[in-house]
Amino acid sequence: MRNCLVAQSGGPTAVINASLAGVIRANQLNPFYDRVYGGIHGIEGVLADKLYDLTELSGRELEILKQTPSSALGTCRYKLSREKTEDYQRLVEVMDAHDIECMFYIGGNDSMDTVDALSSWAQANGIAKRFIGIPKTVDNDLVPVDHCPGFASAAKVAVEITHATYLDYAAYTRPEVFVLETMGRDAGWLAASCCMSGDVDLLVLPEVPFDKDAFLAQVKRCMDEKNECYIVVSEGGRYADGTYISAGASANDGFAHAVLGGAGLQLKQMIVDAGIAPRGVVQDLSRAARSSNFAQSLVDVTEAYELGMSAHMRSADGVFTSSVVGIKPRTSLDEPYSAQFFAGPASEFANYVKQFPQEWILPDYAGITDEAKKYFAPLIEGEPKLVYENGRPATIVPFNQR
Amino acid sequence: MRNCLVAQSGGPTAVINASLAGVIRANQLNPFYDRVYGGIHGIEGVLADKLYDLTELSGRELEILKQTPSSALGTCRYKLSREKTEDYQRLVEVMDAHDIECMFYIGGNDSMDTVDALSSWAQANGIAKRFIGIPKTVDNDLVPVDHCPGFASAAKVAVEITHATYLDYAAYTRPEVFVLETMGRDAGWLAASCCMSGDVDLLVLPEVPFDKDAFLAQVKRCMDEKNECYIVVSEGGRYADGTYISAGASANDGFAHAVLGGAGLQLKQMIVDAGIAPRGVVQDLSRAARSSNFAQSLVDVTEAYELGMSAHMRSADGVFTSSVVGIKPRTSLDEPYSAQFFAGPASEFANYVKQFPQEWILPDYAGITDEAKKYFAPLIEGEPKLVYENGRPATIVPFNQR
Repeated sequence: MRNCLVAQSGGPTAVINASLAGVIRANQLNPFYDRVYGGIHGIEGVLADKLYDLTELSGRELEILKQTPSSALGTCRYKLSREKTEDYQRLVEVMDAHDIECMFYIGGNDSMDTVDALSSWAQANGIAKRFIGIPKTVDNDLVPVDHCPGFASAAKVAVEITHATYLDYAAYTRPEVFVLETMGRDAGWLAASCCMSGDVDLLVLPEVPFDKDAFLAQVKRCMDEKNECYIVVSEGGRYADGTYISAGASANDGFAHAVLGGAGLQLKQMIVDAGIAPRGVVQDLSRAARSSNFAQSLVDVTEAYELGMSAHMRSADGVFTSSVVGIKPRTSLDEPYSAQFFAGPASEFANYVKQFPQEWILPDYAGITDEAKKYFAPLIEGEPKLVYENGRPATIVPFNQR
Repeated sequence: MRNCLVAQSGGPTAVINASLAGVIRANQLNPFYDRVYGGIHGIEGVLADKLYDLTELSGRELEILKQTPSSALGTCRYKLSREKTEDYQRLVEVMDAHDIECMFYIGGNDSMDTVDALSSWAQANGIAKRFIGIPKTVDNDLVPVDHCPGFASAAKVAVEITHATYLDYAAYTRPEVFVLETMGRDAGWLAASCCMSGDVDLLVLPEVPFDKDAFLAQVKRCMDEKNECYIVVSEGGRYADGTYISAGASANDGFAHAVLGGAGLQLKQMIVDAGIAPRGVVQDLSRAARSSNFAQSLVDVTEAYELGMSAHMRSADGVFTSSVVGIKPRTSLDEPYSAQFFAGPASEFANYVKQFPQEWILPDYAGITDEAKKYFAPLIEGEPKLVYENGRPATIVPFNQR
């Protein structure tokens, strides 16, 4: 018997299940492993021996799994500590008990760190287990890749909701501002992608220290010019001293405002307080952008699925360890889009944050450059053909609820 | 020359432009009017003589108009006062100047009141102008109809985002509550529709006086039972004394909490304060549900379009005035769905609010009955085939921006 294990970790995405489906389907095409086990709730469930046998999922179940948003195995925020090796030993015990030789871990940069730590520990202790990472994150902040599965679908939802809410906002004559807030604590990729809708007047990113006076001057200019101002802000927008906009005024301002809520609410309030517009509307996209199946990107679903397959196929070489599969950075943004896969050491994927490039940011909060738009464009085009049940996009019953 | 005018008013919806397209297309099929003018920004723009000639829109433009969310003519909140007849006279002046004999007004119950007022005034003063209403509202609160165009698409978005955010929420093990807030100030239709996703544990509607202790007891029971609780609340949820949940604690509580924000944030805070869950996630759907073209309901688009056509066709009789077209209430929810249209006096559509029926509400915030589900089901099924441009659903450039 030679089995494998696949688990999901960190924040869900619209296509993290497509990567899971890819691993399962690859093993059906080439049954290198006798069983494919799913770990329930990431490492947390695996340590508790909570596994679900995914080997024989039907073609229809796999199709529906591919289009089901969020993490069908359940997720966790549990991080293995390099000091706490009893967790490592417990994990190997569980793997041994089920003849599991290889573990695939689908997650963000914390999870890639786990892959790295487990691999190093196994190698150092002569344990013949392999750990392979499959990245995902809506934040798109992994360093060595062109982009990360999950991001493109989140961006597609963000772009379409930007456009729809802009049209809604622009239908009125009364003077007010509109502020859309997106996820993205340390990197502004998702907020920046909203500019693809063509409707964004001002963009506030974590990558540019927030200057309240300069920002308000731009809002005023915009309102004076056309009596409307559509603003997108990343939840991670912050002042030069590191204070988040969402935390209230910068510490340098002497006192914090009493306004609660996120960055969007704060921006609206400071615009109203400054007398630039008498009112404003705030839309916090929050999780609505993260796991949807009504605006998945076809490119994203396909790539997530193929990355899962690629990880399985590379593992079937039998020599592959401590590696993460990813999408190669494009060499040119002017050529037709085509994803190329590669595998690299887990250490290169973990613990770094790739920010939105400074050279793609226009001054004065004016949005993004044409080069940035060329980067985003192919990622958000196309929709998968969904399977419907009772008039609604079908979703699989999560394995953690079975 | 005999021309007509069509204008939009009130909050945008996903399909208010489909009704506009229906009027324009009907006149292309039977050119009863020489010109079809669009009034920019509702009555406000008409009074300022801001018209746009829509007569010759191409088939492709009409297709794209049908799928463009929000109000392509622009909207207004301006309400004609029955006392301020100079507005009426000015309107007739503008209509005369453009040989406009009939005006179609697409809007909610305030707009239907405008139709009623204008018609009465014209008849009383022997003015040969006709005013015809075409209803729309995401709130679904018009009295004499089965449902109102715009509602079904908003409900569809709400249902799918409910399901997606539920799957996201349910992927975690940590104890927390999830609260989704929807629009609906006085009627809970949109909040109630979220129950169609099958994921809602507790539902808070404006129709049921909010009892904090009883509600918290249900949250506790739910968390004790399964360590999760997915709550939907209408922005109009309120205490027995009429205080909105969003305004803080009920006036009867003696003092208002300092928590700002909507009903969702308030519910989350009271759950955390009561020690039932250490944390919670709040998602405010807000306008993201109102004007989308990524989850339009096919039934809704078709009905909105056909209501526009029906209004035009009935007006071509030459005898029709002060009337509103609508969808007849179903006689049975057990038969296959089929929309039947009717026309009724504007006064019956205006100034009443149809609440979500008490007999469709389960006790203890437990959601909606099977009868209610039978009502919602056919409305949210099916998607229109969208026209794409550059990989994204095409939308028309709003006429108020040309």
